[in-house]
Amino acid sequence: MSIASATAVSLPYRVANLRLAEAGRHQIRLAENEMPGLMSLREEFGESKPLAGARIMGSLHMTVQTAVLIETLVALGAQVRWVSCNIFSTQDEAAAAVVVGPFGTVEAPAGVPVFAWKGETLEEYWWCTERAFDWSTEAAASAEPFTGPNMILDDGGDATLLVHKGVEFEAAGRVPDATAADSEEFAIVLGVLRDSLVNDPTRWTRIAAEIKGVSEETTTGVHRLYELAAAGELLFPAINVNDSVTKSKFDNKYGIRHSLPDGLNRATDVLMGGKVAFVVGYGDVGKGAAEALRGQGARVIVAEVDPICALQAAMDGFQVARIDSVVEEVDIWVTGTGNVNVIGVDDILRMKHLAIVANVGHFDNEIDMAGLAQLEGVVKVEIKPQVHEWRLPNGRSVLVLSEGRLMNLGNATGHPSFVMSNSFTNQVLAQIELYATPEKYPIGVYVLPKHLDEKVARLHLDALGVELTTLRPEQAAYIGVPVEGPYKVDHYRY
Amino acid sequence: MSIASATAVSLPYRVANLRLAEAGRHQIRLAENEMPGLMSLREEFGESKPLAGARIMGSLHMTVQTAVLIETLVALGAQVRWVSCNIFSTQDEAAAAVVVGPFGTVEAPAGVPVFAWKGETLEEYWWCTERAFDWSTEAAASAEPFTGPNMILDDGGDATLLVHKGVEFEAAGRVPDATAADSEEFAIVLGVLRDSLVNDPTRWTRIAAEIKGVSEETTTGVHRLYELAAAGELLFPAINVNDSVTKSKFDNKYGIRHSLPDGLNRATDVLMGGKVAFVVGYGDVGKGAAEALRGQGARVIVAEVDPICALQAAMDGFQVARIDSVVEEVDIWVTGTGNVNVIGVDDILRMKHLAIVANVGHFDNEIDMAGLAQLEGVVKVEIKPQVHEWRLPNGRSVLVLSEGRLMNLGNATGHPSFVMSNSFTNQVLAQIELYATPEKYPIGVYVLPKHLDEKVARLHLDALGVELTTLRPEQAAYIGVPVEGPYKVDHYRY
Amino acid sequence: MSIASATAVSLPYRVANLRLAEAGRHQIRLAENEMPGLMSLREEFGESKPLAGARIMGSLHMTVQTAVLIETLVALGAQVRWVSCNIFSTQDEAAAAVVVGPFGTVEAPAGVPVFAWKGETLEEYWWCTERAFDWSTEAAASAEPFTGPNMILDDGGDATLLVHKGVEFEAAGRVPDATAADSEEFAIVLGVLRDSLVNDPTRWTRIAAEIKGVSEETTTGVHRLYELAAAGELLFPAINVNDSVTKSKFDNKYGIRHSLPDGLNRATDVLMGGKVAFVVGYGDVGKGAAEALRGQGARVIVAEVDPICALQAAMDGFQVARIDSVVEEVDIWVTGTGNVNVIGVDDILRMKHLAIVANVGHFDNEIDMAGLAQLEGVVKVEIKPQVHEWRLPNGRSVLVLSEGRLMNLGNATGHPSFVMSNSFTNQVLAQIELYATPEKYPIGVYVLPKHLDEKVARLHLDALGVELTTLRPEQAAYIGVPVEGPYKVDHYRY
Amino acid sequence: MSIASATAVSLPYRVANLRLAEAGRHQIRLAENEMPGLMSLREEFGESKPLAGARIMGSLHMTVQTAVLIETLVALGAQVRWVSCNIFSTQDEAAAAVVVGPFGTVEAPAGVPVFAWKGETLEEYWWCTERAFDWSTEAAASAEPFTGPNMILDDGGDATLLVHKGVEFEAAGRVPDATAADSEEFAIVLGVLRDSLVNDPTRWTRIAAEIKGVSEETTTGVHRLYELAAAGELLFPAINVNDSVTKSKFDNKYGIRHSLPDGLNRATDVLMGGKVAFVVGYGDVGKGAAEALRGQGARVIVAEVDPICALQAAMDGFQVARIDSVVEEVDIWVTGTGNVNVIGVDDILRMKHLAIVANVGHFDNEIDMAGLAQLEGVVKVEIKPQVHEWRLPNGRSVLVLSEGRLMNLGNATGHPSFVMSNSFTNQVLAQIELYATPEKYPIGVYVLPKHLDEKVARLHLDALGVELTTLRPEQAAYIGVPVEGPYKVDHYRY
Repeated sequence: MSIASATAVSLPYRVANLRLAEAGRHQIRLAENEMPGLMSLREEFGESKPLAGARIMGSLHMTVQTAVLIETLVALGAQVRWVSCNIFSTQDEAAAAVVVGPFGTVEAPAGVPVFAWKGETLEEYWWCTERAFDWSTEAAASAEPFTGPNMILDDGGDATLLVHKGVEFEAAGRVPDATAADSEEFAIVLGVLRDSLVNDPTRWTRIAAEIKGVSEETTTGVHRLYELAAAGELLFPAINVNDSVTKSKFDNKYGIRHSLPDGLNRATDVLMGGKVAFVVGYGDVGKGAAEALRGQGARVIVAEVDPICALQAAMDGFQVARIDSVVEEVDIWVTGTGNVNVIGVDDILRMKHLAIVANVGHFDNEIDMAGLAQLEGVVKVEIKPQVHEWRLPNGRSVLVLSEGRLMNLGNATGHPSFVMSNSFTNQVLAQIELYATPEKYPIGVYVLPKHLDEKVARLHLDALGVELTTLRPEQAAYIGVPVEGPYKVDHYRY
Repeated sequence: MSIASATAVSLPYRVANLRLAEAGRHQIRLAENEMPGLMSLREEFGESKPLAGARIMGSLHMTVQTAVLIETLVALGAQVRWVSCNIFSTQDEAAAAVVVGPFGTVEAPAGVPVFAWKGETLEEYWWCTERAFDWSTEAAASAEPFTGPNMILDDGGDATLLVHKGVEFEAAGRVPDATAADSEEFAIVLGVLRDSLVNDPTRWTRIAAEIKGVSEETTTGVHRLYELAAAGELLFPAINVNDSVTKSKFDNKYGIRHSLPDGLNRATDVLMGGKVAFVVGYGDVGKGAAEALRGQGARVIVAEVDPICALQAAMDGFQVARIDSVVEEVDIWVTGTGNVNVIGVDDILRMKHLAIVANVGHFDNEIDMAGLAQLEGVVKVEIKPQVHEWRLPNGRSVLVLSEGRLMNLGNATGHPSFVMSNSFTNQVLAQIELYATPEKYPIGVYVLPKHLDEKVARLHLDALGVELTTLRPEQAAYIGVPVEGPYKVDHYRY
Repeated sequence: MSIASATAVSLPYRVANLRLAEAGRHQIRLAENEMPGLMSLREEFGESKPLAGARIMGSLHMTVQTAVLIETLVALGAQVRWVSCNIFSTQDEAAAAVVVGPFGTVEAPAGVPVFAWKGETLEEYWWCTERAFDWSTEAAASAEPFTGPNMILDDGGDATLLVHKGVEFEAAGRVPDATAADSEEFAIVLGVLRDSLVNDPTRWTRIAAEIKGVSEETTTGVHRLYELAAAGELLFPAINVNDSVTKSKFDNKYGIRHSLPDGLNRATDVLMGGKVAFVVGYGDVGKGAAEALRGQGARVIVAEVDPICALQAAMDGFQVARIDSVVEEVDIWVTGTGNVNVIGVDDILRMKHLAIVANVGHFDNEIDMAGLAQLEGVVKVEIKPQVHEWRLPNGRSVLVLSEGRLMNLGNATGHPSFVMSNSFTNQVLAQIELYATPEKYPIGVYVLPKHLDEKVARLHLDALGVELTTLRPEQAAYIGVPVEGPYKVDHYRY
Repeated sequence: MSIASATAVSLPYRVANLRLAEAGRHQIRLAENEMPGLMSLREEFGESKPLAGARIMGSLHMTVQTAVLIETLVALGAQVRWVSCNIFSTQDEAAAAVVVGPFGTVEAPAGVPVFAWKGETLEEYWWCTERAFDWSTEAAASAEPFTGPNMILDDGGDATLLVHKGVEFEAAGRVPDATAADSEEFAIVLGVLRDSLVNDPTRWTRIAAEIKGVSEETTTGVHRLYELAAAGELLFPAINVNDSVTKSKFDNKYGIRHSLPDGLNRATDVLMGGKVAFVVGYGDVGKGAAEALRGQGARVIVAEVDPICALQAAMDGFQVARIDSVVEEVDIWVTGTGNVNVIGVDDILRMKHLAIVANVGHFDNEIDMAGLAQLEGVVKVEIKPQVHEWRLPNGRSVLVLSEGRLMNLGNATGHPSFVMSNSFTNQVLAQIELYATPEKYPIGVYVLPKHLDEKVARLHLDALGVELTTLRPEQAAYIGVPVEGPYKVDHYRY
């Protein structure tokens, strides 16, 4: 779908056809059963509507789970516009179902405008993002005037970036030309903002002024926020959802434990048992990956740069080696570092024939895909969508999943609902905190207070049949905590 | 596709369109890399062609892995005709690729006639099976006259059944009417044989006389063979491939360990971590299922009737309970018993809302699907193909996968290539044994000799980087075995 | 203690001093709680006394668990005399407690004569064994005349060997001289029999004639029995207890899983986590060892000669390598093969400094201890009993546990009571079978029928809280087994 | 040994007899091989002697591992006096070996004065602690005058407590009488200080003024330090060694994983496989305990009060329940909370017969031992040292290990050397930091900087064969860390 055709038919509604929407609604209903945190929030806050008046611009993978998040935000009183934060990650049926809404029809959608479809181009991606900042329809229907959202819910920081760059260029009065050092994608961003500067030279400045805060989902986005804050350039308060325990330790570790083998199976159907798997990085993502592969009977080797994590890997029974030492004997490669070029072309050239190369870390530069594509004589053959055989000049091939991007999203369906329920319950609580108690959050970057982190966990226990023990008052006193928590010091490592 | 249309266009070639065939050939090429046992046999026997002259009728799930099996049989000299042994299990691209063959085209297929497509009706299924016994085309091209195959490679015993029933009814001179006690399917079989008796009253008798033996893949099929042998009704020798160690212990345990979580993921995307899973049966299938679920962080409870297996489950750290005791707390149900109605309607009525019910044992009667369908007030809603929500009169629902049939086939892609390579290497060796050394096998049911079982394992070690230790002569003498094996007594349990 | 001093004070009673006996009785009481199989047999057969009239000569490690076995045999009506089958394995407090008996005193012991103490010489060992065949005291108190036992309960076959050799030499009329090829130990056996031939030239012939059968505990002993039977030299029927599922799969696998890390800890206190452990052999013993080491966070490498077991190891996620390939990187060595010299002196010379070398297989020749002792320049330093540092000429050392003998007996306390309860319940059932239904057992070697094997398991379920599911009659019919079992074919592998 | 007799023969030397010392030196030598962190520090700092001039009073379990710590401190230039911080935890051979020293004799000990023996009374314990503060011998041999140590290395805070209380009472001019609310132990402390006040009314004030800092090992001790600091009463800077990652995550988790099953085995020899184990608390200690028990085939149930830890337990596959719900079915109880009365008498009265009750948390009040002792009709029977059967009025018994105190110390030998090497390398680095760079540490409580924490890990990698990957400069820049670390933000949870 091109932007032209999409806009021609009013994009958010165009993706909503009835069949897709019905399929999506079935899946949303099942996902609700797996997202007890969000459903509990609907119950707790559905009447008081703490998000009444909130206008949330969300930029986060448009999946079935996100649909439950969006509809929870709406149930708590918010108005919402949404985009995906990744060109491949949209599940079209989820997008359609959200647009139609539980009680709408294709002709009269009653849901939330969603600008997202599976397989966007980068141009389409940024067009979508810009669209989600255009609240003119909502403003037209409102008694009070406004330009855009007053809250951002971000994943990776693209929405936040657009606002900050927009403000910066409006202040400068011009948008710079893309330089050779800029990525292709950044050149597109510059183009979007250049058009905007022409059409409405104060738009982003007005939007930024309206925004009460942003809650950010990922390491990468959080990193950008801390940099902005350190440079004194952050325009509104931010809550770092990523570093809630119930996000980082659950999403990264247990999510990957689930979705890595799922993606490997859907992509390749290759037996993991008996194979040699190499996990690059033993942070939470690597820990989840290694556990999953071992659980399937693979022999796992780990690489690490941090001696503490390396020692943990050893104590957990894994061989810890450099890629170089074992590259010829590995069947399955998994990267989970958040760093660049951790698997290089030289490594790839030494791999076993038909070794599988998969990334569950962050960007597609964890594997040197650019270098691979430029390799003299390399041939790329599509086995099926998101699974490519790269035939190497040495006569061997490797299988690269999802073009080197996150294969748990590209080859599987991402983290399962229950994991996302933890992350998203943090998101909703962060939105409530920022929107309803702005006095607690001057401009800066915050993590959620521990009692809310514990609350997120607490909301997920019943569904698993977990019986929580209650501290007796004398026990609480003995360890110096309130009976109802929080129970741990902030630096506790879990 | 109806039989009418299929026959009209010469079925085996009809399924072969180029796109499917190309996709299938890619997958076959990747599978060959994962099936070192079969590829080694091609290398070892490709010149000597021990199956030259063999006419093999195969009835076994028409998957990508089976394609590698079929083409191995051909490489060893055999002529082959094939059907699937299950109405749902055909992978159409694999069927197409086999028909076209590595060097053929849609217009001039150079491969093997395959009568199979995904989603056959029972009538179509038996029509296909009958077609695979019709070797008139091959006979027309041959110097010597024959009616049908001279070997059967069977999975579940349907091909063997058809021959035995055909012979029986030809001897009786009539095919009995189906009685009320007969299944719908058996009525169809009777119909096929009734037509045959009219057209050619000695056809099955002649076919049976030509057959040198059958190799059988499954417990069920083997069970039928032992019954026939015990009754003195077995018409040709049989090799029980199922009870090779490298089949039963690998296919059942390691295959299920792989494909159970795969099927659960593809069907439901539900997080296994933290959930309560109940595995009915702790034989090899149950052991693989329990290990897989634990490896994903589920809490596994096991049911068993055999006290030895029950004790094993306990020693492996699993709770062992009766369904009745814990039915309300279970999220995921898995049956792997080979028995009937191990989960009944009364159990289902007590389950948690949206509990998942999956069978990896054998027939769809492990779960009382018939009883469920007859339950007053029950409503069945298709969430997606092979995933149905059964809305119960009590207001709760359960999710039943693959209609209660084998979900690792229905919701996933069955056992992975590497596992099937073990099973199928046994199959090929059994075919060679029966065809090339018939003097060793008077009518009866045999398992492969241990040295061949060990050979199957041996052919799969290099691919996994396994270094085998060699006995020194004095060590071999010390334990009283040949240096080159076999190493264990026949009753060794592994 | 020398034989002279021991005999001077009537050996079996001498070991019984009150302090030891009291400690032993405490431990026996606790062990009874962990041996539900034996205690159930006391309950089931305590009244009917199926072993009334049985005179059992037992030769099996004189541990606390064996004490519960002995007292169970007595509770079932038997008279018993006992020796240990290993010079190091006696727990003196258990021996003392059995001699004194639950209701006896040191002055008036009311228990069973035991000829065993920790740390016997080989001469003492065979003296003890011979003593346990001398039933003159019991005969004097009996109405009917007899020479010796009428049943043997054997572990390793030494008691059975003595009878067979005695009979052989009595028939020959002379005991041959030891040759250079004979072991030191066999020379001692010859000496014992030479003395016997002088004193009573028909003693062993009369004893053999009285013996109704032997139940044998171990692989080694069973191997000897099959050899005797094959040679037509077996003098009485034998039951191979070793190959009961509830013996071999439980004792070997779960017993070693428990006692290997226990022995390593008591011997060395070395952290297993993070270490590289090498397990030689992946039979049941090796499987238990590998699981235990992995459970403690070690990285386990396995060596195998049998390709099937090697493939299992790989599928279970272990690296499979030859010693030669990884010898320099291993911290902990474990042998479990039942074969000779699986770790040789050349291997030892390449090991890491202070590598730990331990045997849980069978004899001390699994590790080439003889070769090590003869190594030029080697120095053996006792760190503590059963833990020796062998200082090698290359400047490194290795730690050898229990002189290369079974370290789970030498450095720990052997298999725990619950495991031994399985083995010993098999033993008692075998004794009952042979003694009470001799008509079922002509001379030959038998395994227990499967229904008794299942019974052994069944008797251990309640203690673990296991709920067994009961087959419904239609289910039993469907799979063709009785509702009450046995449930599996004889060759089922568990 | 009474204080009278001990002092009469000059206690620290009295414990040193040659046999003990020799045995101890063997064990120290083996432990050095397992403590690469400490040995690396000897190599790195053995020449520069950064602790020259340091007078360290150490109060920490006097084990073989501590011997290696002590001798490392000495190798780095320090003078040392030592006591154990627990009345049961001294290994007498380690104490003896340290006193004699590597090159001394019993007559002319050349090592470090140690005031500790296994099985002290509380009076003896505090006498020992006071003795270790008496540096008059060292002062007599020194050119410069001093009263006591200038550094404390503490475990649990008893040494720190004595100084602080001494200073407090000297300021007050009197030591208060013990009140009814004071523990028996505190009354003894008051007695020691009362005597001191009479003999030397400014002693503790002078000592406190000389002390440059304390490094503290445990949660409990650290908790006391933070309380003192918060109250403004802390007298010298403190480094919280406990919260180094390489201490808390390693010592607690991996140490307990090792020593819990070790203690269970030595105490009871009970099979863990198949048993139901209940772990109270799922912090690092509980995580290690649960992993160890699962690794031995036990079925583990966990109790938690913190919803985040409870959710972790569930995601790791454990049942999470309240004691009350499952008390009747548990075989093995393990507490690891650091809280009081987590197992009460009412719980004990409902336990299975001969259930095992063990504490690896902290004090003996985790289990209500006081309540148990006061229970009407209870009888305590010693099975063997540190293993007691408590016969309950209801006719059942429970087995309590180590009187409810830390059973991994009382029934086993505590954490193994490799784990302690991590903890103790932190200790030595903390001592160096406080002593050599006091300007960095004004009075307050600190954790070690992350680069030192990473250094501790780094020093332990080679011994495990771990290959660490090195960041390339562009990778370090990409994630914004130095190539050589530290690699993580302070709140990273590992």
